Amino acid sequence: MKWVRYQSDGKTFYGILEGEVVKEVYGSPLDSYTESGTTHNYASIELLPPVIPPTFYAAGINYEKHVREAAVLLGTEPNIPEKADIGYRAANALIAHQQPIVIPKDATEKVQYEAELVVVIGKETRNISESKALECVLGYTIGNDVSERTWQASDRTMWRAKNSDTFKPMGPWIETDANLEDMVTTVRLNNREVIKFHTNDMIFGVQKYISEITKYITLYPGDVVWMGTDGSSENMKDGDICEIEISGVGTLRNPIISE
Amino acid sequence: MKWVRYQSDGKTFYGILEGEVVKEVYGSPLDSYTESGTTHNYASIELLPPVIPPTFYAAGINYEKHVREAAVLLGTEPNIPEKADIGYRAANALIAHQQPIVIPKDATEKVQYEAELVVVIGKETRNISESKALECVLGYTIGNDVSERTWQASDRTMWRAKNSDTFKPMGPWIETDANLEDMVTTVRLNNREVIKFHTNDMIFGVQKYISEITKYITLYPGDVVWMGTDGSSENMKDGDICEIEISGVGTLRNPIISE
Repeated sequence: MKWVRYQSDGKTFYGILEGEVVKEVYGSPLDSYTESGTTHNYASIELLPPVIPPTFYAAGINYEKHVREAAVLLGTEPNIPEKADIGYRAANALIAHQQPIVIPKDATEKVQYEAELVVVIGKETRNISESKALECVLGYTIGNDVSERTWQASDRTMWRAKNSDTFKPMGPWIETDANLEDMVTTVRLNNREVIKFHTNDMIFGVQKYISEITKYITLYPGDVVWMGTDGSSENMKDGDICEIEISGVGTLRNPIISE
Repeated sequence: MKWVRYQSDGKTFYGILEGEVVKEVYGSPLDSYTESGTTHNYASIELLPPVIPPTFYAAGINYEKHVREAAVLLGTEPNIPEKADIGYRAANALIAHQQPIVIPKDATEKVQYEAELVVVIGKETRNISESKALECVLGYTIGNDVSERTWQASDRTMWRAKNSDTFKPMGPWIETDANLEDMVTTVRLNNREVIKFHTNDMIFGVQKYISEITKYITLYPGDVVWMGTDGSSENMKDGDICEIEISGVGTLRNPIISE
């Protein structure tokens, strides 16, 4: 099942996408819902990020090749994490599928994509084992963890490097039926394939992260966990189109413009 | 004016606190409100954190003495920040005035308070100058940035060191009439004064942080900015009571218990 979130007549709705038809609901997949009887054509709705997370988690460093290639770019030693320590991103930066990533005026040319699987939490959860961890997952969506590498190296935190407005495209929808083992992540920059990797080849998987987080932290419906990216990235510039496809989930596409 | 947020008959309300009387409102100080006509006795209401922030900002390192004393404790060199780079905390950890801080089972004895001024944003704001920055501030409250120092030193991020459930007491209310220059922060552990400092003696002040953040980031109503703490802290243990007073704002009091 695919859940879209969108605006209609100035109000925000969730809907179930079936083919080209969006079946509008009252409520949300995060608690309870009933179909309203209204339908829309998918092409006619204005998509929103599929959820606004109460807390926005991000694994950050979670693929070995990415650690090694990022270390070269940042001029540091590769540091493979030994524990599933989770990090954070910020909701201000979220945009939907098709909305533009805006490069800030004083950014350097090193504004890069990072293709990430996003886990959407569906149930309040604390102290869950790895074997049961997927029971609290509503579904999956796709994130682009846009990063300005110069600021990432120079600043004390990743505030503007990772969380400048529009730097967190997420969408297009939440897919509830995807299978982690089957996913392949492909990034296309202006229709040219630039990276492809097995999505689940993580240092610490979805189950491990959820189990570790919930030893100390309650996960709530709508929380998202961005799972990190593999490989190295290219720069994006004004006029580019960045597409991230995760097989079984969908394709997140965003144009890039300059401020 | 003091804004409290509380639960009544299973619903969440804002109210205006005048003496011992809480005047309930429909709506909120973050958009618009009207008095409902209902009043409560302050002693009878169950306070909630005065706001659940869409994004939870934290300066982290913002007083010189704290940088020097923290460096000694963590065994690192003191590193005075040269720029107002903002960090983040997480909403899962928020609790209200009087609610217990719960020390996790496997925490070390180094669970410590950090007394912080909290800025509550009232208006959507982007690109604001330092001289106008306070125009987007609704008011101030108090935060206790509870920290497990062993995890803070050992982990790659501050997830459980700073964001374990209950580690972010905030309250008791939002005071809209306080003056930054007049504030003094006092911490009492079991009624013994353990630290006192001029709240506004920051490396980078409220106006500077707001102006810097909004060069890249939109602040939204309800966002909070925790401004950091001064000096060094003592350990808290089961049975302790930690009180943080900021003159002109109020007093945040929380008991400490073990999981």
